Amino acid sequence: MPLFRRAFTPQGAPPGALAPGSISAIQPQISWLSYSSTQLVEQEKVEVKDLPHRDTQSHVLWVDVQGLGNGTHAQQIGEHFQLPKMAISDVINIGQRPKVDDYDEHCFAVLRSVHLDPEGRLAWDQVSLFFAHDYLLTFWEKESTLQATIRERLRSGRKLIRESQADYLACAVLDAIVDGYFPVLEHFSDLLEELEDQVLQKADDEILRQLYLTKRDLAAFRRAVWPLREGLTHLLRDSDNRLSDASKLGIRDTLDHTMQILDVLESFRELSASLVDVHLSMIGQRTNDVMKVLTIVSTVFIPLSFLAGVYGMNFDTSMESNLPELSWRFGYVYFWGICLTLTLILVFLFRRLGWLGRK
Amino acid sequence: MPLFRRAFTPQGAPPGALAPGSISAIQPQISWLSYSSTQLVEQEKVEVKDLPHRDTQSHVLWVDVQGLGNGTHAQQIGEHFQLPKMAISDVINIGQRPKVDDYDEHCFAVLRSVHLDPEGRLAWDQVSLFFAHDYLLTFWEKESTLQATIRERLRSGRKLIRESQADYLACAVLDAIVDGYFPVLEHFSDLLEELEDQVLQKADDEILRQLYLTKRDLAAFRRAVWPLREGLTHLLRDSDNRLSDASKLGIRDTLDHTMQILDVLESFRELSASLVDVHLSMIGQRTNDVMKVLTIVSTVFIPLSFLAGVYGMNFDTSMESNLPELSWRFGYVYFWGICLTLTLILVFLFRRLGWLGRK
Amino acid sequence: MPLFRRAFTPQGAPPGALAPGSISAIQPQISWLSYSSTQLVEQEKVEVKDLPHRDTQSHVLWVDVQGLGNGTHAQQIGEHFQLPKMAISDVINIGQRPKVDDYDEHCFAVLRSVHLDPEGRLAWDQVSLFFAHDYLLTFWEKESTLQATIRERLRSGRKLIRESQADYLACAVLDAIVDGYFPVLEHFSDLLEELEDQVLQKADDEILRQLYLTKRDLAAFRRAVWPLREGLTHLLRDSDNRLSDASKLGIRDTLDHTMQILDVLESFRELSASLVDVHLSMIGQRTNDVMKVLTIVSTVFIPLSFLAGVYGMNFDTSMESNLPELSWRFGYVYFWGICLTLTLILVFLFRRLGWLGRK
Amino acid sequence: MPLFRRAFTPQGAPPGALAPGSISAIQPQISWLSYSSTQLVEQEKVEVKDLPHRDTQSHVLWVDVQGLGNGTHAQQIGEHFQLPKMAISDVINIGQRPKVDDYDEHCFAVLRSVHLDPEGRLAWDQVSLFFAHDYLLTFWEKESTLQATIRERLRSGRKLIRESQADYLACAVLDAIVDGYFPVLEHFSDLLEELEDQVLQKADDEILRQLYLTKRDLAAFRRAVWPLREGLTHLLRDSDNRLSDASKLGIRDTLDHTMQILDVLESFRELSASLVDVHLSMIGQRTNDVMKVLTIVSTVFIPLSFLAGVYGMNFDTSMESNLPELSWRFGYVYFWGICLTLTLILVFLFRRLGWLGRK
Amino acid sequence: MPLFRRAFTPQGAPPGALAPGSISAIQPQISWLSYSSTQLVEQEKVEVKDLPHRDTQSHVLWVDVQGLGNGTHAQQIGEHFQLPKMAISDVINIGQRPKVDDYDEHCFAVLRSVHLDPEGRLAWDQVSLFFAHDYLLTFWEKESTLQATIRERLRSGRKLIRESQADYLACAVLDAIVDGYFPVLEHFSDLLEELEDQVLQKADDEILRQLYLTKRDLAAFRRAVWPLREGLTHLLRDSDNRLSDASKLGIRDTLDHTMQILDVLESFRELSASLVDVHLSMIGQRTNDVMKVLTIVSTVFIPLSFLAGVYGMNFDTSMESNLPELSWRFGYVYFWGICLTLTLILVFLFRRLGWLGRK
Repeated sequence: MPLFRRAFTPQGAPPGALAPGSISAIQPQISWLSYSSTQLVEQEKVEVKDLPHRDTQSHVLWVDVQGLGNGTHAQQIGEHFQLPKMAISDVINIGQRPKVDDYDEHCFAVLRSVHLDPEGRLAWDQVSLFFAHDYLLTFWEKESTLQATIRERLRSGRKLIRESQADYLACAVLDAIVDGYFPVLEHFSDLLEELEDQVLQKADDEILRQLYLTKRDLAAFRRAVWPLREGLTHLLRDSDNRLSDASKLGIRDTLDHTMQILDVLESFRELSASLVDVHLSMIGQRTNDVMKVLTIVSTVFIPLSFLAGVYGMNFDTSMESNLPELSWRFGYVYFWGICLTLTLILVFLFRRLGWLGRK
Repeated sequence: MPLFRRAFTPQGAPPGALAPGSISAIQPQISWLSYSSTQLVEQEKVEVKDLPHRDTQSHVLWVDVQGLGNGTHAQQIGEHFQLPKMAISDVINIGQRPKVDDYDEHCFAVLRSVHLDPEGRLAWDQVSLFFAHDYLLTFWEKESTLQATIRERLRSGRKLIRESQADYLACAVLDAIVDGYFPVLEHFSDLLEELEDQVLQKADDEILRQLYLTKRDLAAFRRAVWPLREGLTHLLRDSDNRLSDASKLGIRDTLDHTMQILDVLESFRELSASLVDVHLSMIGQRTNDVMKVLTIVSTVFIPLSFLAGVYGMNFDTSMESNLPELSWRFGYVYFWGICLTLTLILVFLFRRLGWLGRK
Repeated sequence: MPLFRRAFTPQGAPPGALAPGSISAIQPQISWLSYSSTQLVEQEKVEVKDLPHRDTQSHVLWVDVQGLGNGTHAQQIGEHFQLPKMAISDVINIGQRPKVDDYDEHCFAVLRSVHLDPEGRLAWDQVSLFFAHDYLLTFWEKESTLQATIRERLRSGRKLIRESQADYLACAVLDAIVDGYFPVLEHFSDLLEELEDQVLQKADDEILRQLYLTKRDLAAFRRAVWPLREGLTHLLRDSDNRLSDASKLGIRDTLDHTMQILDVLESFRELSASLVDVHLSMIGQRTNDVMKVLTIVSTVFIPLSFLAGVYGMNFDTSMESNLPELSWRFGYVYFWGICLTLTLILVFLFRRLGWLGRK
Repeated sequence: MPLFRRAFTPQGAPPGALAPGSISAIQPQISWLSYSSTQLVEQEKVEVKDLPHRDTQSHVLWVDVQGLGNGTHAQQIGEHFQLPKMAISDVINIGQRPKVDDYDEHCFAVLRSVHLDPEGRLAWDQVSLFFAHDYLLTFWEKESTLQATIRERLRSGRKLIRESQADYLACAVLDAIVDGYFPVLEHFSDLLEELEDQVLQKADDEILRQLYLTKRDLAAFRRAVWPLREGLTHLLRDSDNRLSDASKLGIRDTLDHTMQILDVLESFRELSASLVDVHLSMIGQRTNDVMKVLTIVSTVFIPLSFLAGVYGMNFDTSMESNLPELSWRFGYVYFWGICLTLTLILVFLFRRLGWLGRK
Repeated sequence: MPLFRRAFTPQGAPPGALAPGSISAIQPQISWLSYSSTQLVEQEKVEVKDLPHRDTQSHVLWVDVQGLGNGTHAQQIGEHFQLPKMAISDVINIGQRPKVDDYDEHCFAVLRSVHLDPEGRLAWDQVSLFFAHDYLLTFWEKESTLQATIRERLRSGRKLIRESQADYLACAVLDAIVDGYFPVLEHFSDLLEELEDQVLQKADDEILRQLYLTKRDLAAFRRAVWPLREGLTHLLRDSDNRLSDASKLGIRDTLDHTMQILDVLESFRELSASLVDVHLSMIGQRTNDVMKVLTIVSTVFIPLSFLAGVYGMNFDTSMESNLPELSWRFGYVYFWGICLTLTLILVFLFRRLGWLGRK
């Protein structure tokens, strides 16, 4: 996942223009579902022109679009439901900042559905929702199995959801997306614990790389969740007239989840920063240990080598003052004696400096 | 205690669903107690079906549940007292963000009761409270001796608590849980002071590990306390009509404690970060000291060894220009003279560089 | 681009004075354009005295000035449109903090149009806008092609923009400037990803220099965008009576973009800080690796050299106790035996210390 | 001073309970003073039962308690003046978070009087104040000379203080305590400047220890002052009816001081963090310098030693191809020539690398 | 400039007391100036007793005091104009936190006039202003040329300032002081760019010292400007009735400047922190480079020296198995062959490790 993933229009383009190159390979799959407490009609793989119209009284209409294609489907649906062009351009140009906007006629929300890619890195798809009391439109950047689960709940005739209006259905989708953050959070929790173990045992470049990538993913995750908190708070505070009581409870619950996820992300971010510090300290510690070994070996053997070098000098020993030790009877024994004494003194000194306590 | 401990429902599940695997091994122990200023009835180890009903006029009813089992007891009690399903699911799915929610019919609070596990690491259990003016429900994730202490206060007939309504009792429980944070805080205070001493004396990996784990625990502690502050502040500000004056005073006191705990945690967190920095500096300092020893020894002996090597060369001394020193009368004395002079010069230089002041 | 680029007046000068040395080399090019939904008149390269007057009823007047020269043009235009002197001095003295000020008669906005200089470093030009319902003045520090694009939209007779008042036109300019931030953001995204790769593979001074300069540019970028967020928020909240609904939608959209840019910048800033940490750790790691090589080589060969030195000593071997090994039959073999044994022991030790796992 | 100093009650204890072990060795000394603009009566070393009652009309009563003993005196005084038990328990259980609480009948403030212990480390005593318009109670954890100074002002008949009500007297005490922060601040200012000098000249463990302890004290200092700011702000905003105009001016002044102290503390904290960074860099720099010396010495002498070793080899020189240099006429001169050349080349290289510029 | 520069009164002193030792060496120079749109009278070097009285109708009176002396002049002027004692004590006791206080009868502002001392370090003098609609008092800690410039504007009869009331004059002084921050900001901008260059080229202790001192100055600068922002914001929001429209515009402009200065200071502070990090990394990098040189030289020559040592051993070569190489015909050539081979292998290895790419 690139650091910055955003389809944007060229400077000076009229608002709501399509960003060049934002054409996704995935062909839109449109399906719709209409229900009241007693009835449920659904149809899959339909064309835009076959979509039913809003039936503001008796039924709730849910139109679900999976995949964005070149954006024309979304534009046609936008015209069908008389949605503002600027919002439709947010749907198509993926990489929008998550938000929950409350217009007079409808609410518009952009979220990021977060999952893990095959390499265990964070990935996200953009999900856009339009909803009023009688309809819900959902646009998914890629196919998603999420709506199938909720559709199942509708089909199975659960009372609360079947009797509520479309805002409650929208809350259910919102909540499902936010609930999808928890397994990813759990993944990062496991990852961090693993990295903790590794850093605290041995420290190498590979761990550092993973730590860094984890930090990067955590930052991306936070960026995906943080604006949601604002959006939901505003929605809860400002839209008393729009949302049903059940929906408000649901939003409140989703907001709770969002805030907990942010808390946890914040502490993960802090801990991964701590781990980098710990890693740095450990490397310093290790360098220190390596240095001690080198210093001990050098300090012991360099003087001894010098001594051996001395007794290997070729001064003319026929002169009495030159290297008299060489002709001593126990010269060699005396040499080893000095070596041993020196070594013992140094070992004693190193032990007092605490260098030999733990190598 | 894992980094992230949260039972969550699968994506798309209806709100209030039970998270898979959240079944706790501890079988719920239900007991109840009903009192007025003159009377007190209590019963232990009862079944859900035998629970008394709310008696909104004369008595305060306190139902206490220790252990969550597979969650069915909580659900049954929820139905018995007509509590919202979503709140009951918060009770069962442990790992909720602490919160104090003020519904119209009752208040709902989730807290973390914090204690130390046998290894001295932070551990917490979730405690959930429902209360209105005439009843209090408490759900403990594990057995707790806390409610026994408060029950004793009720039995001993302390006037204030016996004459007050259930909200005051709830405050007493809240306060007791928050008071339980202080001994843990004291533990971390002691631990940090100990780590301070260790870091400032010697620095090794083990201390780093402990420092890191302490930081992690402090972050978890903070996450347990921080949301409480918000919750209590809102409760105090928004629920004038619900709480009695005595309860408000109590909440205010608890809020004071919460804020002090947060202050202290914040400064602990800062200090433990400082300690990591100090640790890093100390390792650097030590590496520097080790390096100095190595450099002094090497700088003194490497040139001397070279000299000894020179006089160990086998140039043909029959030519006059080759190694004439070897045949000098006091060649050996002269050799040691050079060695001594060189050493003295280097010692003088090192002393001027301040390297010999403190080894 | 210097760290601080601001033309400021000497202390005690009257407000609205021209800062000395703020004369730009670029001669102002003045053009104007007047349109209603049905008509469009435009004229390029005009003198200040030939500028039309405001026609508050039927037409929207857009006067565009490219280049600031010595500031006299701006001052004359200010008198022509009766603008406050202090605002005109903000137009001329470049380096103002971006802002959106709402006066009674008009709005005044200062922005920074951000682009990349030939070396890929961040550069910006100041853009100032005055607008009321019937006119828009735009002052560009340097030539810009931006207004040409919008002028084209006007000429092509796009309905929304032709039927709206001047505030909508101003929004279009604002939005175009903010849209111009995205390609720069993308540039930094690419740059950071490249630096990531480089840091995570090898670490040297050049990368550090680039990282630092990137951080500096990100800080400058943030400083250019941050105040805009405040300004737009205030404009949206406080000027209900001034802005048309379409303009409000436009401002809201621009505000969304601004906030997303700030989010992304914030995370880039964090990541570049992380990269410096990673870089530091990697250098430590590398020093550690180098040290290990040195230590292994030294620890193996220094004792062996000592041994070779010992058997090179010239003790008088006619005494039996002196260097008896020299006259052993397999003395040399025995010497290599010791060498091999010592080396094997050390290799075994190093392997246990994990130093030979990855050199 | 321990990191966390707080007397707390066991979990589940009723509010206002005495914390075990909070008995201070200092026996309470109670004195009182009653004054109007014309009269002043005072009595020292009195018993609680001899205390006068509030005389809400004509006189201001000031009861001063120095030392807390086992808390019974405070409890008796609390009953005498009908103060809430919970507040009295805050008086006795030292280590409260500083606060200014505005009850209906009186104000209650807890502050920390800050001073330096004999070792120059930060120490604090808790001071508690109750005041209404006609009385002031002050409880000092230890003896304090502060009240003597204010008493002197009262005795000397200074008009403003003698004619004002008890709230003005309370402000005088508050202000005196906050004024006591300035000399401590000055102490830390001096200490930091001294540490600056030391760090910038030489860096060792002792400075690091002092820096760390200073940071710790600054954090404790901040924790003592920060909540005061909130408390005073609230008092000033919310209690219009209670405080006289003179008192409000006084509180405003004290608040100004508090905010300045916080500003200065904040910048001290930042600077001490910077100093740790500088210290770390300096150690790195020094290690680098030490390494350079070692590397220069080794790089020069190790190849020379090798050369000397070569000419000390015992190859059979009767074969012409073996060590022919040994029998050269000027072999020894040639050897020294090579040594000198090599050294000069290396010195030249080191100078180009800039290693010899500053040793 | 010391870290903390504040004259404070002893604990318990009455409010408004003079701090001991706050007597400045500079004797106060009092001058006054009275003007209306048509008239202007001025007098220099006057005594306090000769000061004119406020003439609330027709004229604006400006009394300017340069130097504070022992404070008695300020106290006498305070009595002359019936100013509160506490404010006068803020004037005399320099080192106050900058503030803008709005009293009923007048506004009182304390600012810091910032300049550079001869060593290029930040220095500040305290400036205090009292103003109402008809008079302005200015107290300068030291002589200042600032008021001369404004006086000149008055004398030259600039219309806006001559026709406005004293609050506009006060704004002019405020603005002049804030404008004086820009050259200092420019100085730090230049300094940081210079330090950038130095750090990015070579890193030594001197740069670190300068960086640290710059950080310290930036913190002091920020502390001088930050409170001004609050003060001006409050003044603008709360004093609608006091300030004229022209003054409000002026204050708004000054506030803009203040906020820009804070923005820039913030980014300077961040950049100087980054530079310390970069410096640390560079030192690490350099140590690494030094280590590589040492390791390469040692790794090549230590084994070779060992080999030379081996062939310098004195084993009895009359036994065939002892050092047979010594009597080989091309033994010496063979020795150099081994040396060359070993060196080539190591050079190849080092090149593969990337150590020889950049020394």
